[in-house]
Amino acid sequence: MGLFESLPDRVSVYEVSPRDGLQNEAALVPTPRKADLVRALIAAGLTRIEVGSFVSPRWIPQLADAEALLSLLPVAAAQYSALCPNMQGLERARATSIHELGIFVSASETHNKRNLNGTIDKTLSRIAEVASAAAAHGIRVRGYISALWGCPYEGDVDPARGLAIARKLAAMGCYEISLGDTLGVGNPRQTRDILRLFLQEFSAELLALHMHDTRGTALANVVVGLELGIRTFDAAVGGLGGCPYAPGAAGNLATEDLVYMLHGMGIPTGIDLDKLWEAGKVAAAVVGHDLSGKVHKAGVRSAKPPDR
Amino acid sequence: MGLFESLPDRVSVYEVSPRDGLQNEAALVPTPRKADLVRALIAAGLTRIEVGSFVSPRWIPQLADAEALLSLLPVAAAQYSALCPNMQGLERARATSIHELGIFVSASETHNKRNLNGTIDKTLSRIAEVASAAAAHGIRVRGYISALWGCPYEGDVDPARGLAIARKLAAMGCYEISLGDTLGVGNPRQTRDILRLFLQEFSAELLALHMHDTRGTALANVVVGLELGIRTFDAAVGGLGGCPYAPGAAGNLATEDLVYMLHGMGIPTGIDLDKLWEAGKVAAAVVGHDLSGKVHKAGVRSAKPPDR
Repeated sequence: MGLFESLPDRVSVYEVSPRDGLQNEAALVPTPRKADLVRALIAAGLTRIEVGSFVSPRWIPQLADAEALLSLLPVAAAQYSALCPNMQGLERARATSIHELGIFVSASETHNKRNLNGTIDKTLSRIAEVASAAAAHGIRVRGYISALWGCPYEGDVDPARGLAIARKLAAMGCYEISLGDTLGVGNPRQTRDILRLFLQEFSAELLALHMHDTRGTALANVVVGLELGIRTFDAAVGGLGGCPYAPGAAGNLATEDLVYMLHGMGIPTGIDLDKLWEAGKVAAAVVGHDLSGKVHKAGVRSAKPPDR
Repeated sequence: MGLFESLPDRVSVYEVSPRDGLQNEAALVPTPRKADLVRALIAAGLTRIEVGSFVSPRWIPQLADAEALLSLLPVAAAQYSALCPNMQGLERARATSIHELGIFVSASETHNKRNLNGTIDKTLSRIAEVASAAAAHGIRVRGYISALWGCPYEGDVDPARGLAIARKLAAMGCYEISLGDTLGVGNPRQTRDILRLFLQEFSAELLALHMHDTRGTALANVVVGLELGIRTFDAAVGGLGGCPYAPGAAGNLATEDLVYMLHGMGIPTGIDLDKLWEAGKVAAAVVGHDLSGKVHKAGVRSAKPPDR
């Protein structure tokens, strides 16, 4: 039984709360409060932080302040990224200190059409243009494939369609491709099957997992990823953001839960879990309500049990 | 890579919500409402249900009504069990239709002392008497070892101490021994290590896992159990019960989350997940508040995504 005999010697956590988290919040968070959150994340040791999006403010008003937010952040303290859907976004990005851009497409035609207003092919053409221009300007590009574990409109998604998209993202020069269970429906066997398919063509170093915890399976899927050599996982502190497809349910995997498990397994992340827990408290204060993350609610480790 | 190449062809779910769930609820639930919950669980296909405890009502008033509850339940519809800490409990049990008794001890001396009012050795002597008398009366006995993944008072727990206890429970005639992460601190590597130790002496068929989801790791630990051949998992519908050591946090692994993952992995349980989800709604109504289970909150699968 070789279980966990070749675990990664280190994991890179890709923090998405300021973008994927706040995007799903009803409230508009003031820019200085977002900066407070990012600073708390940096203080916890996070070095890769998706801070916003250069999508049109008409589409996602919660993320309209990417430029203003970046201007408040210490440039060298972390690797900041933002989503960038098109050339208008790229022009905005160029005027900032952004280190990295995210280009994204769905593995489901219907999901892509509803979210990105066009066919997958049309989206791929548009983001290929973004990737090319970003490279010309020295900005590295990360690819996202969403709805790969299932689609809210189409149900099951053929992983081979995701693989065909990944080939194109790799050809565009993406240094990393984040595979997303956007709906939060994945199970470990499915994750094994998807990853094995992708690992036939790509090295584990090129891939990241972006699991949502909507049905509680995110960490079980992460374990499969670890076992198959994946070393980068996306997460949002506190589980910030919820699920747009199931109001009241959990969305992003909570960074604290991920780091708690990794550290418990002896896999370093460079993150201070106690400070990360504090950053989760900042996140909850910023949005003004409780968050769904389990370590966020329970604490890093129960300290004061009641007498009985 | 042999990951998931010898998954169990079936899993037995051991439902503990009427006992381990309600035990941690502040409110006293009326007996007929408990019976409603048990009936909803049976309708979902659960066949092994821990309905209460023959502990002194002074200790756990929430579970004082074991006899009354059993009198309301259809005897042949499921395998009912109840905890039984001592010979007074056994006398109460004998006057009912109970099929099975649970005897329990902690792997942590301090936890045992605080919860069971004595040393581990003293508890083992007491429950050996119970096990012997139960056998004489044709009632089978299940053993529980709690706090095996960590103790709220002592911190880390040496699994070898749990193993020594398991030997004694096996010698008492327990047909199954449920290993409990009572504090909900376990991680998959630790679960691998604990199970490998136990599997050196015991067959996987003798063991069950009782994972709490307090830090989100329950299903990740279940995956390790599956990979090592464990076929029985304890859970509570909706995640009923919370955590006595971290108010507001999750406790028991939610049965819906477990069954959702198992079915997604192609492992049958005999449970109807839609009806189980309905049973979770009954559980929430019975206690009068929201529950923490993720599938409970999200639904079995998102059905109606919002237009945008």
